[in-house]
Amino acid sequence: MASQKCLVKGYPAPGPVTNSQIRIYSMRFCPFAERTRLVLNAKGIKYEVINIHLKNKPSWFLDKNPAGTVPVLETVQGQLICDSVITCEYLDEMFQDKKLFPADPFKKAQQKMLLEEFSKVIALIYKIPIGKSKGEDTSADEEELKGKFIKLNEVLVGRKTKFFGGDSVTMIDYLMWPWFERADSFGVARPLDAAPALKEWMKRMVEDPTVKATMFDSETHKAFLKDYFDGKPNYDLGL
Amino acid sequence: MASQKCLVKGYPAPGPVTNSQIRIYSMRFCPFAERTRLVLNAKGIKYEVINIHLKNKPSWFLDKNPAGTVPVLETVQGQLICDSVITCEYLDEMFQDKKLFPADPFKKAQQKMLLEEFSKVIALIYKIPIGKSKGEDTSADEEELKGKFIKLNEVLVGRKTKFFGGDSVTMIDYLMWPWFERADSFGVARPLDAAPALKEWMKRMVEDPTVKATMFDSETHKAFLKDYFDGKPNYDLGL
Repeated sequence: MASQKCLVKGYPAPGPVTNSQIRIYSMRFCPFAERTRLVLNAKGIKYEVINIHLKNKPSWFLDKNPAGTVPVLETVQGQLICDSVITCEYLDEMFQDKKLFPADPFKKAQQKMLLEEFSKVIALIYKIPIGKSKGEDTSADEEELKGKFIKLNEVLVGRKTKFFGGDSVTMIDYLMWPWFERADSFGVARPLDAAPALKEWMKRMVEDPTVKATMFDSETHKAFLKDYFDGKPNYDLGL
Repeated sequence: MASQKCLVKGYPAPGPVTNSQIRIYSMRFCPFAERTRLVLNAKGIKYEVINIHLKNKPSWFLDKNPAGTVPVLETVQGQLICDSVITCEYLDEMFQDKKLFPADPFKKAQQKMLLEEFSKVIALIYKIPIGKSKGEDTSADEEELKGKFIKLNEVLVGRKTKFFGGDSVTMIDYLMWPWFERADSFGVARPLDAAPALKEWMKRMVEDPTVKATMFDSETHKAFLKDYFDGKPNYDLGL
């Protein structure tokens, strides 16, 4: 495998994708890019990774994605796909092995509705540690987050399934997982105590072979996030 | 056809869907609900409409969608689907006649990326008239909107097609149309002058039989929006 070290401004642009099925522009600790890497790994797609220094981007990266964010997928044909959810759905449709979204349109719509609701959880998960680092009172946000976790808990309890889409891991689980992997590191683990079924789901997710092969442990996330919230992220931490 | 008048608090809950393929909870002037009605009409689906008084909702409507927004779809089996984009994609997958999203996963992803970008246009289209009604200087927002319109113009020019997904109307056109239908009524038509290809697209869209059968004219929108921005929307205007 090539170096995982992130590419910085001035580094030459990579050539076309030739030695794999697809390429992902990523950042090792980005939860949005992790969604796409989970889907790539779960589906057994042969891919290459180019990590980008998000605070000092190579100029050619903005030609790939003017928004400058990861993940971005690049195909053998040079097609570019941005946005974490769009990349995951693209991969699921393009590579038919091990479909992750349900085939049933209603069940798929249910996953998308849950995802829409979950976007509010993501916003809170960032808001709380940022507020804390500024010495603000974040108790109202923590209470709101607890309410959101309780709702997710109710979904699991109501469905009586091990995962959100049934008794095996499907797309919705992978799309939500990266923020639960970081719950402890973000300092938002306490509101989870009110959501025991959700905590059980987290334990099951950690046992999933794809999650195991993709995730970092809490200590690594904590070390990364400490520097990140200080404005000096070390994207090559541990390399 | 049953009355289109909107249902208010205290009105009894409707029974299950029996006389059509699907039901939509809507509001006649809501651009988000119009997306779903455009897709229903374009695909020739037999549906029934229940319009909801969004300022004085029947309590049972919150059981259908706790967020209280339209559109909501209800199936013969009693399944409920919320969120305009999710409902449109559900309809396109459930009813196979006249597919509106491209079958090619990359072309579909392109439409979704454009839609993601368009969500910022929607935010500005509301921000400008609200700012104007408060006597604020909205010139910076209008400039930003002009830039967004120019970008959409470039997409059309670059693709050399009549519509955003090719030479016939596809999903992305219907998902963006409702706000262009209201551009004049929202007072944001001027920034369009910098986007001639986009204006040509608008002229073509007005000629589409589905758009023709679904839209209201500018005068009606203006009358509705005047009351709406005064906080007293007349959902039954013209009935």
